[in-house]
Parts: sequence; structure tokens; C-alpha cells
Amino acid sequence: MKIGVIGTGAVGRTLAGRCAELGHEVTVGTRDPAATLQRSETDAMGNPPFAEWLAVHPAVTLGSFAEAAVHGEIVINATGGSGAIAALTLAGSDNLAGKVLIDVSNPLDFSGGFPPSLFVKDTDSLGEQIQRALPDSRVVKTLNTMTAALMADPAQLAGGDHSTFVSGNDDEAKGTVAALLRSMGHRDVIDLGDIGTARGTEMLMPIWLRLMGALGTPLFNVKIVR
Amino acid sequence: MKIGVIGTGAVGRTLAGRCAELGHEVTVGTRDPAATLQRSETDAMGNPPFAEWLAVHPAVTLGSFAEAAVHGEIVINATGGSGAIAALTLAGSDNLAGKVLIDVSNPLDFSGGFPPSLFVKDTDSLGEQIQRALPDSRVVKTLNTMTAALMADPAQLAGGDHSTFVSGNDDEAKGTVAALLRSMGHRDVIDLGDIGTARGTEMLMPIWLRLMGALGTPLFNVKIVR
Repeated sequence: MKIGVIGTGAVGRTLAGRCAELGHEVTVGTRDPAATLQRSETDAMGNPPFAEWLAVHPAVTLGSFAEAAVHGEIVINATGGSGAIAALTLAGSDNLAGKVLIDVSNPLDFSGGFPPSLFVKDTDSLGEQIQRALPDSRVVKTLNTMTAALMADPAQLAGGDHSTFVSGNDDEAKGTVAALLRSMGHRDVIDLGDIGTARGTEMLMPIWLRLMGALGTPLFNVKIVR
Repeated sequence: MKIGVIGTGAVGRTLAGRCAELGHEVTVGTRDPAATLQRSETDAMGNPPFAEWLAVHPAVTLGSFAEAAVHGEIVINATGGSGAIAALTLAGSDNLAGKVLIDVSNPLDFSGGFPPSLFVKDTDSLGEQIQRALPDSRVVKTLNTMTAALMADPAQLAGGDHSTFVSGNDDEAKGTVAALLRSMGHRDVIDLGDIGTARGTEMLMPIWLRLMGALGTPLFNVKIVR
């Protein structure tokens, strides 16, 4: 399947690499591909230069946001939450129309330091904002409740015996996403309901961040025991 | 141990009954004990009259909020979140001074219908509000992430193989609470940190409410797999 990934940070790289490994044709989108390739220093989050990563993932193509959107039958929003709508607007609503748009971002606001607060919550969510901004796309919120390594390869923790949530208005799109998630190793995919249920998964961030502190690792996940 | 329980609803009853079953001396506090005992109809939440419950839990005593606070070495706030500070004020800050105050409530606002929103979140929490209102009490937020039946008897789900969080500023108080929790069957008690971490557990409510809808039962709980 052709997959576009919007965002070149750790989340975008990890998901793009995993999708390529699973045999998909992946284009990663960035604002300015030439500038992204020219960077030779680690980014603000400590990621090595993208060109280094790309050199060891030769099956992945780099393009503009719009090129990644045009390429993808499924497009993954792997930008930071605060830049999500700007990046998706550059990707182009026409290029994303009718497509499954997987949103894995969180509305983190670091302006007050760490831990971040949420710039939208409780009575609205980033998933809903994205669906409203792109009414012709089929937004599915998922994977935003775990660290990037587990998004891409959940089996590395307890053989994958933990839970993954999907939220979205289009049942067929959620089914497509659930199949992709299962191919990555997600064994327990729980459909929470419409995109409004993204409020619930985005509001997991505060306890997730405290758990990372208490446990001393981001390699943990929620399992819904029932 | 002497335990005071503030609140006569389902949560207060379930915890009071379990504590009595475990051999503790329990006084449940209510605003007006005579009025509580005189009620002969189910309450707004569908609970049978308190007098009926008390008749089958003869080891439990009913008293005023203040009497329950005076009685308890540990006091449990089992009121609804919106009434918590008013009830604890009636219980009396002097009566609660120096004591471990277990807060199991959530800041649910039903004024907009179902699902409720949260009347405090993200940059503050009900746990913190209670700690500020009662600076001489040692507030420990816990159990607010699961249904009452599992608070009291977690082993009824998967033998208790799921997680329970504690938040509070006083390590000794958290240790006392963790011991009580373990005696109830809580096998995995995770100390998230200070009372500010209650923001994280209170903000689990939105996904908890959606999960109850998706799963069709409140008998589920979060396990932190790591």
C-alpha cells in the first residue's frame, strides 16, 4: 500500500521505517525537502539528521508535505500537535480528500515548561480540530497513547499484550487502520467510537508523562483489562 | 484501624463495607444522619435507601460528616467531586488535621449532560484543590480510575492483575494508603509523585467513560504494562 507520512521527527521516522519494512511504499513529507536533507546536526529533540536516517532506509522517499499527501492511499499525521493543522493545510485538503488520515499527534503545549499542558481538551480535541479542518478526509485518531517505538513495534513490550485505541467517524476507515495496526503487531485494538472520543486518548497524556517519570522509561503501555 | 468515610453513595458504601469486612471500625459520614436514615426511596443514582444497606452492614456506624472525620485515623472522601470541598469543610479542617485523607472523587461536571466534562483539569486538579483547602491534612489521591466494585475488591477482575495509582505530597501517608490498598487486593500500586500528579488520574475519566460505552461494562481497569 502507498503510505504518506507527514513529519520527519522521531514519530514520523519510526512509523515510516516500520511501514517500509512491512512492504509498503512510503513517502515522508516535510516543509522543505532540500533544507531537511541539508541539515547536519541533531534536531531540538535530539534526533540525528534526517539524511542519516534516510541513508539506512533507502526504500523510503522524501518529498514535500503535498507530495506525501498525493502519494499516500493512507496518510499519517506524525507532526507535533501544535504544527499539525499548518502542516496538513500545506499538504492540501484536495490531496487528502477521501483518504484515510491517521492522526497520531497530541495537543501538547510546552510554553509553560515540563510537563506540558494541553492546548485543547475535554470539550474538544486535536483529532476533532483536524477532522473539521479537513472535512473530506476520514480522520482516525490512534497510537497517540504510547511512545513511537511501541507505535511501530508493540511486540517488543510483553509480546504486544497491551491496548491500542481508534477514534473516528468512518467505520470503514477505522477497519483499514485496525488492519494496518494488527500487521504492525497491535493485538488489542479498541474502537472507542467517533472522533470525539479522541478527547479521551489525548487526555491520557498527563498520566503518561507522569508515568514516564515514575517508571523511568517511555517503554510502557496501557492494557485495558476486562 | 478506625476509618471515616465521607459520603453515602455507591462509592462510600462499597468502600465502607469492604473496610468493615477487613476488620476496620468504620463510621460513614453524611450531612444529616437522621434524614439519611429516613429516606425510603432509591437515590438519584439508583442506589437503594441507605438504611437498607446499613441493615446488612451492622458493623458500620452512621454519623455526621464531622463525626466520621473525628472517628477516622484515615478518612476517605467518597463524595461526588462537585460536593467534595463543601462536605470536607463540614467535616472540619481541625478534625482532619494531620490525618491521611484519601480522595477517590473525580471533578465531573454533568451540567452539559453525558458524557460529563471536568470542572478542573490539566493545570490544576480536584486533589490539589482539596489539599489546598485542607493544608494540614495529608491528601492521597487514589482509586478514582476504576468503578467502585473494583476499588473495594480488585481481585474480582483478572485476579487483580491491573494497576492502581497514588498521588500525594507525603510519602508516609502514601505508604499507609498503599498498605490499605494491598490489603484490599490491589497488587500493582504505582506512586506517580506529588498531589499534582492527580491531574493525570482525574484526566483518565474521559477515556474511562468512553471505554464503559465501548465495552458495555464498568468492570474493566487499566494495567500499566512495563
